[in-house]
Order: sequence, then C-alpha cells, then structure tokens
Amino acid sequence: MKIAVDAMGGDFAPREIVLGAILAAERHQTQIVLVGDEPSIKKILDEKKANDLPIEIKHATEVISMDEHPADAVRVKKDASVVVATNLVKSGECDAVISAGSTGAAVAAAIFNLKRIKGIDRPAIATPMPTPKGVTLMLDSGANVDSKPEHLLQSGIMGSLYAEHVLKKKNPGVGLLNIGEEETKGNEQTKEAYALLKGANINFIGNAEGRDVPKGNFDVVVCDGFVGNVVLKFAEGMAKTIFHLIKDAIKEGGLLGKLGAALLTPTLKKLAKRLDVAEYGGAPLLGIDGYVIICHGSSNAKSISSAIRAAKAYVESDVINHIKNALAKDKPLESGI
Amino acid sequence: MKIAVDAMGGDFAPREIVLGAILAAERHQTQIVLVGDEPSIKKILDEKKANDLPIEIKHATEVISMDEHPADAVRVKKDASVVVATNLVKSGECDAVISAGSTGAAVAAAIFNLKRIKGIDRPAIATPMPTPKGVTLMLDSGANVDSKPEHLLQSGIMGSLYAEHVLKKKNPGVGLLNIGEEETKGNEQTKEAYALLKGANINFIGNAEGRDVPKGNFDVVVCDGFVGNVVLKFAEGMAKTIFHLIKDAIKEGGLLGKLGAALLTPTLKKLAKRLDVAEYGGAPLLGIDGYVIICHGSSNAKSISSAIRAAKAYVESDVINHIKNALAKDKPLESGI
Repeated sequence: MKIAVDAMGGDFAPREIVLGAILAAERHQTQIVLVGDEPSIKKILDEKKANDLPIEIKHATEVISMDEHPADAVRVKKDASVVVATNLVKSGECDAVISAGSTGAAVAAAIFNLKRIKGIDRPAIATPMPTPKGVTLMLDSGANVDSKPEHLLQSGIMGSLYAEHVLKKKNPGVGLLNIGEEETKGNEQTKEAYALLKGANINFIGNAEGRDVPKGNFDVVVCDGFVGNVVLKFAEGMAKTIFHLIKDAIKEGGLLGKLGAALLTPTLKKLAKRLDVAEYGGAPLLGIDGYVIICHGSSNAKSISSAIRAAKAYVESDVINHIKNALAKDKPLESGI
Repeated sequence: MKIAVDAMGGDFAPREIVLGAILAAERHQTQIVLVGDEPSIKKILDEKKANDLPIEIKHATEVISMDEHPADAVRVKKDASVVVATNLVKSGECDAVISAGSTGAAVAAAIFNLKRIKGIDRPAIATPMPTPKGVTLMLDSGANVDSKPEHLLQSGIMGSLYAEHVLKKKNPGVGLLNIGEEETKGNEQTKEAYALLKGANINFIGNAEGRDVPKGNFDVVVCDGFVGNVVLKFAEGMAKTIFHLIKDAIKEGGLLGKLGAALLTPTLKKLAKRLDVAEYGGAPLLGIDGYVIICHGSSNAKSISSAIRAAKAYVESDVINHIKNALAKDKPLESGI
C-alpha cells in the first residue's frame, strides 16, 4: 500500500502536510509519496530527522492555487502537485491520493485522469459528520451543484456502500436531505429523487430534515453539493462559535464560574475532540475510478495523518469494486447527461 | 394596537398559546384576540383568572393540521383558526397576526387574504438567528423553494429594510448564501442573483458562506427557502446536540467534573438562553401586505409572548410602507412570474 500526498495543497502546506506524513508513517506504517517542491519537502524531513521513514518525494514544479479556475488550471498545469499525485494512482504506483488544496482542482484532476466509474455521472464528496450516534456520511458536500435527481440516486447507492464497507455499518439507513418528512415535501429535485431512491436497492428510510444530521438519525444523508457545502461550513462555524461563547461566558462568570471551568476543562476538551473534523480524516471523492481523499484546506499534521489512515482503510475496503458491481446489477442508472 | 393570535396552531396549542397571550398582555400591555375554539380558550383564561386582561376571543370552528395540503386546506376550511385570524388583519380589526401552526397554511392564508406587496412575487420567512454579534436575519427560511434569482433580489431588499427599521441596524450588510466567496462561485440561481443584488440599492457585501451565518458576519443573509429551511433546522438540531453532549460529558467527568458543572451551570444557562430561538419571537413573513409572524411549531408560552412583543415592534416600524416605497423607486423588480 502506497499513498500519494499532495504536499503543496492546503493553507499550511507544505509544512503541516509533510509533518502529517511523518506522523502517519510512524504510526500507521504506511508508505507515502510526497508530491511537490522537492527542496522544501526535503528540508522539513531533514529537520525532523525523518529520512529513515518510508516516505519518498516526487518532485512537481507547479501548484494550483485556490483562486484559479480548477478545470482550466488542471488542463494547463500538467506538473501541478495535485495532478502529478493523481497520476501516481493512474499509473498504479500509488493506491490512493490525498489533497488538502483546491477542492475543485482535486475533483477536476480525478475526473480527467482517473475517470468516473461507469454508471456514475458525477462524483460526490462524502463528508463524515460527527454525531452522538457515531458518524453520519453526508454527500455530496461540494463536488457538484445543480444536481439532477439521478445524481442524488447515484450518491445514495455510493454512500450506502461506503457506509457498509468502510464505516462498517450493517444495512446503513439512507436519508434524503429535505424540508419535511413527507414524501410530497421538497423542491423539484428532491421530490423526483425521493421516488428514485425509494426504488433503489438500498435501505432508504425517507426524508431527513436538517435537524436529523447533527442528531445522527441516519447513517447516510444524500443532498445536492450546494446544500451539503452550506451545511458543512455552517456546522464548522457553529461549533467554533459555541465553544467561543462558552469561553466568553466563563470569563464573565466570575470566580466560581472560572473554578467550574477549570474543573470541567478536561471534559470539554474531550468533547471538542469528538466534534473535531480533523479527527475524521478527510472525505472520499466517491464515483471516481480510483481512491481519492479530499481534505479540509485548514488541515494540520493531525488531519493529514488521519486522512492517510482513512485512505488505507478506504483502499482495503475495495469499495470501488463494490460500487461497480452494484451498478452493473442496477442497470438504469445513467441519466445520459 | 391589537394582535390576532391563532390559538389552535402549534404542537402545544391551545394551552401554551393562551398562556403566552396572558404573559404578553401582562408584560407588554398589548390587546390580543385569541382565535379558535372558544370553550377551550375560555377554560384556560378562567383557570388563570385572566379575564380582566385585554384579551378577546374570536370563535373559529376549524383547525388546519400539519399534514393537510396547506393551500387546499386554506381554500376549503373558511372557518379555520389561522384563516379567521388572518382575516382580522384584512378587515382592519387587528394590526398583525401570529401563528405557530402549519407554516404552509399561514403562508397560504396570508397570500390569499392579505395579498402580496406589489413588486414582490413571493413572500419570504425572515428568521432571526442568534450570533455572538447580535441577530442575523436569514431569509427565506422556508416559504418557497425553487426560487428564481429575482426572488432572492426581492428578499435582499426586504431583509435590508427589515434589519434597518425593525432590528435598528444602520446600513445593514446583506450577503448571499453561497458556496464560495468569489462572485463566480455557486449554482445557476446564486450566480444570477449575485449580479442582481450587486445592482440593488442596498449594502450588498457579497457571498456569505455557511460559516458566516453562525459567526454573525452579515446582518442579512439571503437564500432559497429550501437551503434556509435545512440550515435553520440543522442549527436547531446542532445546538440541542451540543448541549446534550456537554451534559453527557459532565456525567462521565467524575466528581470534579460534576463540581465544575455545578459551578458553571448559571453561565451555561445564560448561554443557552442567548441561543434559544424562543427568545427571538418568531419570524416575519415579508412580502405580504399585512403584518404576519410565523412561530415555531414547538412554541411555548414564552415564545408566543416574545412573538407578540416582536409583532408590536414590527407594526410600529411601518416597514411594509418602507418596502412599498423602495419598490416604487426600484421599478424593474417584478419578474412577471
């Protein structure tokens, strides 16, 4: 097993990415190829005396930044770190690729170089959301907008198989993110998607409302990438806001409040860790014929290390073949768009 | 000033609604007309010895339940409490109407009986979201789905005027809920809406991402009712989940954790109150030629009392005339749909 990591992608690249690779190599005995500017990467490895670890460097001269048009940049910059890393999976040198850089660029590089699975019109980012009942997989959380109902059906099938084979959930319950429980509720897209999901060979429970996501009432929640992305970023902002408010409230709470806070700190820290997306190791880009993991732009070493661990489990699950088999059975999936 | 209250709408109607009216009549010296089953309402008023308060009863024989088709039910059930209450505004007997019943029915009753403001194609529910920087007004949070870009423009104008005249924010900053900061980001709907909002006579700042809503980075956030409704319910579920997790974590935190929690309880309670939507008194249905406030289905007496107080401020703001004046200036608003 060998994992390609885009060393130049992310707000804290290359430093945090390289440190994350070191962590993962030490902890999870994974072979890693760091792709990007060799001198910069080597400097960090030297500094950390990490030259004995199973980490290789693959030099790449270009970087795609957050403000470039993803598809155009991937076409033009053949030697961009995310493109070179993705091509290591295409050539079979690596088993999976991880990037914390521009999500659009990672998606475009995957579509162009690894191609979609036959029967899948659009890939979907499947984000694991922490809940009190374990993880809820929300997809699509930002790969595509203006989805057709068929795309939501495809996401439902892929999400169900990922939950079963990677998250090890038995007969995972799939919900459609909607604005009411009843089948008749929703917009044009979700009303049609409901009918399609109902007919699919998955455990489709029905509509999930916004509140069902944080409560963990479904194993898999299917939605358009616009809605999923808004919800994901809202969750991130809200978690941060609540913890800040708690801190502020404690400051204003006087001496007893401060004493209480001091006593409660280990408990709150444990809770914050449980809600920390960095613990959950990135989001798989489902629907691509290759193992691709998208990480948060603000990924630190811990997040990258978790993502490398998650990538390993993802590859071992062989879920792409499970998706291919399921689609071969469920013929009428392609919308032809 | 006289406020019509649908006494039969809501999960805890009529009891909590009547108790809320009593609270408001005592605290805010408001004249209230409770609309619904007279014997049931009278019984609660008698029990609370509230017969000297400025509360009238208007008998209505029918109720629209949550699972009825809103528009059909409003058409057929002429004597439904929400219809009768709305008609009290139409006839001029009351200045505003409040309902915690089926949102769809309240919206349909408002559109049929009070009509839309000229220049507004679709009304929008404007929900005040608590943030560390004060309230952010999010609209539409569920009156309409599959909005056209023009509808988002109309929401932006109405939301801006509401924030200015009711929430008393000077030159309120308006954002468009989207999946990236850049003008080019988004789906078809938001890309077109961006251009329209940019040209409007409001303080349009640009795209707001999901995380900007809980952080309070905008005074007004404009979105389609599908997205707004999902976000609103997500926020509700997440706030509840985090407080439950804190409680659970405290239980597992041992003796010191429990002592800490006990000392911190007043602080956390104050925070919970600050985040409690019940404190914020319902959401105005903007775009209707009449003052309509939509309350959460789970409204308790406190929520209803807050909504009555909010309704009073809403009517006093004269914001409907401000909207009419703004639309008369900004002619080319009607999409003709």
